[in-house]
Amino acid sequence: MRLSQFHLATVKEVPADAEIVSHQLMLRAGMIRKLAAGLYTWSPLGLRVLRKVEAIVREEMNRAGAIEVLMPAVQPKELWEETGRWEKFGGQLLKIKDRKDAWYCFGPTHEEVVTDFARSELHSYKQLPVNFFQIQTKFRDEIRPRFGVMRAREFLMKDAYSFHLSAECLEREYWNMYNAYSRIFTRLELKFRAVQADAGAIGGNVTHEFHVLAESGEDAIAFSDGSDYAANVEKAEALAPETARPAAAAALERVDTPTQRSIDDVSAFLGLAPAQCLKTILVRGNDGLVALCVRGDHEINEIKAAKLAELPGQSVLAEEADIVKALGCKPGFIGPVNLPADIPVIVDRSAAVLADFVCGGNADGTHFRGANWERDARITRVEDLRKVVEGDASPDGQGRIRLARGIEVGHVFQLGTKYAESLNATVIAQDGKNQVMTMGCYGIGVSRIVAAAIEQNFDAAGIIWPEPMAPWRVVLCLINPKNDAAVSAAAESLYAELQARGIEVALDDRGLRPGGMFADMELIGIPHRVVVSERGVAAGTFEYRARRDSESRQLSREEVLALFAA
Amino acid sequence: MRLSQFHLATVKEVPADAEIVSHQLMLRAGMIRKLAAGLYTWSPLGLRVLRKVEAIVREEMNRAGAIEVLMPAVQPKELWEETGRWEKFGGQLLKIKDRKDAWYCFGPTHEEVVTDFARSELHSYKQLPVNFFQIQTKFRDEIRPRFGVMRAREFLMKDAYSFHLSAECLEREYWNMYNAYSRIFTRLELKFRAVQADAGAIGGNVTHEFHVLAESGEDAIAFSDGSDYAANVEKAEALAPETARPAAAAALERVDTPTQRSIDDVSAFLGLAPAQCLKTILVRGNDGLVALCVRGDHEINEIKAAKLAELPGQSVLAEEADIVKALGCKPGFIGPVNLPADIPVIVDRSAAVLADFVCGGNADGTHFRGANWERDARITRVEDLRKVVEGDASPDGQGRIRLARGIEVGHVFQLGTKYAESLNATVIAQDGKNQVMTMGCYGIGVSRIVAAAIEQNFDAAGIIWPEPMAPWRVVLCLINPKNDAAVSAAAESLYAELQARGIEVALDDRGLRPGGMFADMELIGIPHRVVVSERGVAAGTFEYRARRDSESRQLSREEVLALFAA
Repeated sequence: MRLSQFHLATVKEVPADAEIVSHQLMLRAGMIRKLAAGLYTWSPLGLRVLRKVEAIVREEMNRAGAIEVLMPAVQPKELWEETGRWEKFGGQLLKIKDRKDAWYCFGPTHEEVVTDFARSELHSYKQLPVNFFQIQTKFRDEIRPRFGVMRAREFLMKDAYSFHLSAECLEREYWNMYNAYSRIFTRLELKFRAVQADAGAIGGNVTHEFHVLAESGEDAIAFSDGSDYAANVEKAEALAPETARPAAAAALERVDTPTQRSIDDVSAFLGLAPAQCLKTILVRGNDGLVALCVRGDHEINEIKAAKLAELPGQSVLAEEADIVKALGCKPGFIGPVNLPADIPVIVDRSAAVLADFVCGGNADGTHFRGANWERDARITRVEDLRKVVEGDASPDGQGRIRLARGIEVGHVFQLGTKYAESLNATVIAQDGKNQVMTMGCYGIGVSRIVAAAIEQNFDAAGIIWPEPMAPWRVVLCLINPKNDAAVSAAAESLYAELQARGIEVALDDRGLRPGGMFADMELIGIPHRVVVSERGVAAGTFEYRARRDSESRQLSREEVLALFAA
Repeated sequence: MRLSQFHLATVKEVPADAEIVSHQLMLRAGMIRKLAAGLYTWSPLGLRVLRKVEAIVREEMNRAGAIEVLMPAVQPKELWEETGRWEKFGGQLLKIKDRKDAWYCFGPTHEEVVTDFARSELHSYKQLPVNFFQIQTKFRDEIRPRFGVMRAREFLMKDAYSFHLSAECLEREYWNMYNAYSRIFTRLELKFRAVQADAGAIGGNVTHEFHVLAESGEDAIAFSDGSDYAANVEKAEALAPETARPAAAAALERVDTPTQRSIDDVSAFLGLAPAQCLKTILVRGNDGLVALCVRGDHEINEIKAAKLAELPGQSVLAEEADIVKALGCKPGFIGPVNLPADIPVIVDRSAAVLADFVCGGNADGTHFRGANWERDARITRVEDLRKVVEGDASPDGQGRIRLARGIEVGHVFQLGTKYAESLNATVIAQDGKNQVMTMGCYGIGVSRIVAAAIEQNFDAAGIIWPEPMAPWRVVLCLINPKNDAAVSAAAESLYAELQARGIEVALDDRGLRPGGMFADMELIGIPHRVVVSERGVAAGTFEYRARRDSESRQLSREEVLALFAA
């Protein structure tokens, strides 16, 4: 591509509302332009990158045996009512009334439509398993669209839906998709983790999120430094300590802690480590209050707590008035010693091996020192209740937990029969009977990947594209203020030769000064830069610099070509 | 592609509302499936065809120097108010209110958005000319969606918009696009015509529609059998006859025609050809009634009439009461003889050379015979007023007019400054002053092409794809009920060899009986069929049949491969 015939429009200033680096750099590079809140036009430069991501996603989905379809963006309300999601999906669902006053939505996802398609298309077990995918424009009416295409309202998504007769068959396809996703992000040269995620309200047992690792990521990820294990921090299991609980050595003793309520204050006041203290909270249970205990240096994981049988599917702190009524003290002084018998005491695995610990005195301004389980305080049950921390043993037994931040770019999910049941999507099974199909769904945020890749690959000068998603692999910067025929000829010849070899090359023939040209090419992140100048041509060399290098090198034509030989 | 691993689902019955053959065949072939009125899912088979059309369109747009972008489907109301089209566009505009009660539309076209993009991106004459295109999903809320994807509500469109400093520059790009469109439809192997169209209310001087010729087409087209000339029938010029008006020979004579009002009745009654009669109608003019005269065998072209200076931009017949009041007679007896002096008489070129003609007597139940212009009736002005008919001289002087029906699949348009002015899209010109840009727009109905191609290429058995848009170029039908290893090996070997040569080949390994397999492959329109059977393998031959052939041939492996050598 000759850049004189392309539309490149880098921008000096970016609006103040561009909070994250990918949003800033995409605007500065002129990859996107805002049309309205959460709506962006992809410029020629931006679209080149988007299409590269799209192509790799498509290739790997095809390679994995999924079959491409294209479903409408606009979907009728009736289908969403069959699954109950017309109301339940919430405000992100953009509802539309047509000229005949019929209701539709701009699809935020396609479970309803694809299941309707499947119930029409699939009749026999012989047609299963099958996995339909599409790469298509979706809309989610985010209440606060921001971060550019990272959380846009209109975005490009790859969504796939598989149909099966059995959970075993679904699981095979699930791991097939898992592997395809791993290939996609590997080919895109992104640092990523497949993260065990919480299935949440959608149901289903197994789900993984694919996260691009980046400091700006919204999600906290726990991963092992000794294996492939990775999970959302919310989901990561905290193993029981390898050591058993020591025997009680100290006597139980009430101490005055007139103004000390927090673990930090109490432990400092008593000259003990926070890990020697017990943190106790009261939450609302199904039948009155429930006490949850973790070690003082740990945090309650509310997702884990919400799953306790004693709790109503969510973890909500008890009101102060209820605590005062039950214990006679305020929050900050709660502990398991002498707790009323009708309050279950659920203790985290790490907290359960404490001995001679400090805990609240269940009376304002006091704590206990030298408290011990069983002897002084009952344990209703030991559970995994806490958030993992750096250095914890990895749940798979290999390595230690490290924490990182990630940007979710993909999701694989074993849906089961939820949608197929609602929509009565059945096939005739081998036994001649109708059977509801079992489904999986598999999403990739195609446009979001572009932003996530930048969050992981940039420097002060701009974007540093991984080669597979770069708009061009190499740029030839033509510096020829005197219009010297030999300089032009050298550039054209190298340009033609690289093209002939199938290398995606841009020829910057816009006639800019070197400084402006180089700044543009660094900003838009072209991996390789070759300068064609009068001095170089006279010496028979080209100045070469990789985007990640700090220094240039003088290379012969053959050496330049050899760089792209692979 | 092994069809056992593809999703092919041909259908026996099609719904009664599938009125045209392309809609019926796309449903029967399982290319599309209806989701709701005017909303279709493209199945794997349908999408293969759609993507082929899309790829050819993209390649030729790129070759022509247009630059691809991707604009949002959802567009803010504010932009449409700047051009006044929020109200003017009419019911096809699907209006959407988001969760914050802000209004948007699902874009039916992108003039507003691209002009907004251009006013942000383009600052200097140095950036011009530029032509941005996209291939993107549009929505038009058709009041009566029908004919499948031919007139769907959601559809895939290629739209391009060019920006210029001058009308001359626009015109060059216009013909560049005209040529690109011609290459696209030629590559798609469709019979088409580039048709001069009426610019209508949009303004601008030059516009062409690209029509795929098909009997089911909604538009009537006049084209020359001796040149490239083609125009909408409404737009096609009817030249003046080459012969001058003969001298008057007969005397004017009033004849009784008590019940004869129509040209057919009058000419039969009087024993004359309709071409010897004059058809006169009265329409509402700006200042009272206006008489329009054409030859009896011709029809008034209302589009041409509406452009007369005497008319208010449209051609509306006068009320009978007004005619009776002005002339004292009813419609059916009107003629130019003795017409009140305040009624202008506009005469078609062919009618103006009549002599000794029959016309209405301006009294109920009478006509004149032997009427002559000038001597008996005044002519205010001679104009081109009629619809062309088969056999007319082509307006470009080459060949004769033929009539055909067409399906509009493309449109090129010189917009001028209409949108750029409304949206104040200016650049700094060479003289340093701000100048409003001049625009062109160029659309192709990508999904509609698929249906149009079928309307032009089908038979009783199904679709007959032009090779460039066929889902596969050739299918190998594997007939192997005994699972003979030699038969499978012959099929696999030929399959591998064709793939190695880059031929798009399907292997029908679904295990169907020959009849069902052949019917499927004819229905879905694969251009070449090669049967691999036990008998053929024993004889060292393959049964070959082209989709358009009526007979099969026995070919050797080398002969089969040679078919696809080009």
